[in-house]
Amino acid sequence: MIEDKNQSRTDLSDLGEFGLIDHLTKNLQITHDSTIKGIGDDAAVLKFNNKKIVVTTDMLVEGVHFDLSYMPLKHLGYKAIIVNLSDVYAMNAKATHVTVSIAVSNRFPLEALEALYEGIETAAKLYNVDVVGGDTTSSTTGLLISVTAIGETDHEVYRSTAKPGDLLVVTGDLGAAFMGLQVLKREKEVYKVNPNNQPDLEPYTYIIERQLKPEARQDIVKLLKDLDVKPTAMIDISDGLSSEIIHICKQSQVGCDLYEDKIPLDPQVISTCEEFNIDSTTVALNGGEDYELLFTIPQEDFPKIKGNPNVSIIGHMKEASEGLHLITRANTKIPIKAQGWKNFES
Amino acid sequence: MIEDKNQSRTDLSDLGEFGLIDHLTKNLQITHDSTIKGIGDDAAVLKFNNKKIVVTTDMLVEGVHFDLSYMPLKHLGYKAIIVNLSDVYAMNAKATHVTVSIAVSNRFPLEALEALYEGIETAAKLYNVDVVGGDTTSSTTGLLISVTAIGETDHEVYRSTAKPGDLLVVTGDLGAAFMGLQVLKREKEVYKVNPNNQPDLEPYTYIIERQLKPEARQDIVKLLKDLDVKPTAMIDISDGLSSEIIHICKQSQVGCDLYEDKIPLDPQVISTCEEFNIDSTTVALNGGEDYELLFTIPQEDFPKIKGNPNVSIIGHMKEASEGLHLITRANTKIPIKAQGWKNFES
Repeated sequence: MIEDKNQSRTDLSDLGEFGLIDHLTKNLQITHDSTIKGIGDDAAVLKFNNKKIVVTTDMLVEGVHFDLSYMPLKHLGYKAIIVNLSDVYAMNAKATHVTVSIAVSNRFPLEALEALYEGIETAAKLYNVDVVGGDTTSSTTGLLISVTAIGETDHEVYRSTAKPGDLLVVTGDLGAAFMGLQVLKREKEVYKVNPNNQPDLEPYTYIIERQLKPEARQDIVKLLKDLDVKPTAMIDISDGLSSEIIHICKQSQVGCDLYEDKIPLDPQVISTCEEFNIDSTTVALNGGEDYELLFTIPQEDFPKIKGNPNVSIIGHMKEASEGLHLITRANTKIPIKAQGWKNFES
Repeated sequence: MIEDKNQSRTDLSDLGEFGLIDHLTKNLQITHDSTIKGIGDDAAVLKFNNKKIVVTTDMLVEGVHFDLSYMPLKHLGYKAIIVNLSDVYAMNAKATHVTVSIAVSNRFPLEALEALYEGIETAAKLYNVDVVGGDTTSSTTGLLISVTAIGETDHEVYRSTAKPGDLLVVTGDLGAAFMGLQVLKREKEVYKVNPNNQPDLEPYTYIIERQLKPEARQDIVKLLKDLDVKPTAMIDISDGLSSEIIHICKQSQVGCDLYEDKIPLDPQVISTCEEFNIDSTTVALNGGEDYELLFTIPQEDFPKIKGNPNVSIIGHMKEASEGLHLITRANTKIPIKAQGWKNFES
């Protein structure tokens, strides 16, 4: 038969997600004047009749990104929209349209897809985006959702434009989605042993909601505009703080000092980390799925955001030669290393 | 655990793809002025600063849309782009950008994805589109490719605007992709029994190529413009001629007479149909995956396209009350029924 009979074999896990995308797309060429930015940021930037449009796409795969034993389908539909809008906001853009494609096996009844679409519709309404297209097909196993989001911007912000001396700022708090997932995983194990056990999830409501029903920071794009703050670089935190700091530093060719005691943590994250005996800083640095925004601003904009409850100043950018470091509470300097996305590892 | 405990259960196959999409998306509301057309055509139409953009998305799923035992990965990457561009051209638009997302299991080595991307790159170059984004993630089983294509148009053409009296026109020839698939399936069975057997695929080169490496009709958009023909309605033929005629008739609220003897068939389709003892008209009507364009034009444009080797006039539109019919070679009238996409049936 007509088959690819490739002799050599390199495991995907040898490269990791970012190495893999870089490797696969390195030969692709941009030929249209309308392409302002292709692959390599939170979204592509296109220009039509002087209007700048951002386009981004993300997939959620059953067994990889979600587990339906604790993820209600309505929440999953909601989350599939949110993770894409977060990438639009990370470009300093306003989200306007989405397309939603679904591959689903016969084991799902219509009622399951209705619940999924209910979540999609709720997110679309709340974030004021039009669902304008999609594809629905069968799959041999499981459920997969692929969303493409489109937005408009007058002033897009890339990852590659941070300057030494800029302040490093993060929205909201970090690590909650990861700890919510740990609680859900634990309860699933308990449930397997004793299905009649009624878990008390009251102490974990915030962190579970952060995992199952995250929100995207639409408000921050407006806030920065109202405060007249123009971020020099911006990225969304989907893979953990350390991974995103590395992206900004690498692409902007700068270094960074990050202060451990400045990393915003919710009390539920701290208490749950103690309960699970996990270091909360590690969770904030590597947990992922927080969908907060990380950005840099010139030092002179400090007075404009000082004391604002939506944001925390967690560090500052340095010359590239000075490297990337976490300054611990004990005032020691530890190099920042990526430990984020490892989905290809078995 | 937190689970969806839905009591009622309706099988997805009860609705079919189109019924399913209609059902799931019926509550979605359009709120942006920039949305000219949402769900319901080959692509959505958006308007930014008076520039009209079309957006479409399609997924290919292993085990549903392709079988890697006869589909080389390079061809699969090529085809994933083509099927999306075909939807752009069906709006009378010029394709400009695509995003490509891939979910892939660990069983694929890097070299497999390199081959896939080689096909993507080849199609992008040949059709002059920029690959501007995407997502690469792991899957628990198999391979899935989700592509979103973007194009520009000055004069989009919908499915819903055909008029009684218009001529029905199709590009290229029909049924070849389906018959190519039948040959490949047969050879796979032969190979299972005797792996040393070298099949003679020479008599099937055209139809196999139509299945494994289809092309999209970029040329037709230009041709119609050069001929100064403005189609009144247009759609791409991915699900078979009868299904697409029904779409145009239903959405345009018109009827149609389709002439069996006018349906363009390649000699290889005719001979392979004889060999397989399948009726070639049935194959053309219901085979699918031809990625040709089906459009309607006003009768007065007849002289402009008469004798053009790229197109065949296969029928004409009538009042809705007259229904949809195939006029057979024996001059009998048979109602046209959809028998296309049945992926949800087990």
